[in-house]
Amino acid sequence: MEQQYPSKLLGKAVEEFSRLPGIGRKTALRLVLFLLRSDTEVSDRLAEAITTLRHEVKYCRICHNISDTDVCDICANPRRDSTTICVVENVQDVMAIENTQQYNGLYHVLGGIISPVEGIGPGDIEIESLVERVKAGGIREVILAMSPTMEGDTTNFYISRRLAGTGVRLTVISRGVAVGDELEYADEVTLGRSIINRTDFNN
Amino acid sequence: MEQQYPSKLLGKAVEEFSRLPGIGRKTALRLVLFLLRSDTEVSDRLAEAITTLRHEVKYCRICHNISDTDVCDICANPRRDSTTICVVENVQDVMAIENTQQYNGLYHVLGGIISPVEGIGPGDIEIESLVERVKAGGIREVILAMSPTMEGDTTNFYISRRLAGTGVRLTVISRGVAVGDELEYADEVTLGRSIINRTDFNN
Repeated sequence: MEQQYPSKLLGKAVEEFSRLPGIGRKTALRLVLFLLRSDTEVSDRLAEAITTLRHEVKYCRICHNISDTDVCDICANPRRDSTTICVVENVQDVMAIENTQQYNGLYHVLGGIISPVEGIGPGDIEIESLVERVKAGGIREVILAMSPTMEGDTTNFYISRRLAGTGVRLTVISRGVAVGDELEYADEVTLGRSIINRTDFNN
Repeated sequence: MEQQYPSKLLGKAVEEFSRLPGIGRKTALRLVLFLLRSDTEVSDRLAEAITTLRHEVKYCRICHNISDTDVCDICANPRRDSTTICVVENVQDVMAIENTQQYNGLYHVLGGIISPVEGIGPGDIEIESLVERVKAGGIREVILAMSPTMEGDTTNFYISRRLAGTGVRLTVISRGVAVGDELEYADEVTLGRSIINRTDFNN
């Protein structure tokens, strides 16, 4: 039986909220009733932020990261190392790497990952523009920072093929036992790789 | 360390979403990125539903349920039994009872429950208007349908005191072992009450 709402406006708001990922009808109703109880300002600011974001946000024309300007703050920053590009799947990955404060180069956001199962091929993500960036010159290293999954490996492999012959140094983020993890609980593939790719202790 | 967002618009949207209950920064970011990937229409409809709801929704002047009109559909329905009022804590409770299709009377939405711990007293919820409704006449029965909690019991007790002498029949929804529950897992208070309040088998 479909839920009846005491107000059409309420039902409409619940419906729109429940289109969001991970938000079911019950959660949507809870959010909507919260907005009704809160100051009008809370709703107004949320609605405005959604509208402004969707209509005004841009994607950096160089690295395809989300940006408020044509070229994002990272690409436009003269203190970043413009000879290194870190290739990531999405915007969250840029944020995660920036949070480490261990990287000072530029990025290239693919906007997805090659996944035959989901029908996402190389042409559906920003690989061609990466190849062009590298071919335009000035790039010494391309770091492949995809998640260590089948799709990530496939994407890495495809990119490595496309960049072959450009003379650029191609690296991949290290995979191994996560810092703070108990060795005995690491899966054997990860543990195996972390032994093969061991580094000098003083490193 | 505070999260840096690649775009101020993105950061603002995440901030506004994370004001909603149960939505943390990570979830908010996921929702916002979903909206960015979706058609503009999805964002526009969500934003509009939020704004319209907050500015146009009304509360029924009789029962205080959410409504699109001054008097809600339930209060305005001539086929509902206007001699019975079911008192509930909030709008969700009205929806839950309506879903049972077992009740044909009217409601009174308190908009909260007496809770000394949270500083909510009788004056903060719609008890006075309930007393007025009953005193205005025409009401034969008031059903107390608060959750079986300490606060629910306190609210029931307070209302029963305020309605004493009005001659109205005061009932409370039955409490007992939930339908479908295993008897052995019912808590002893619930099981005890369900024995004390046993009803004739043919009932």
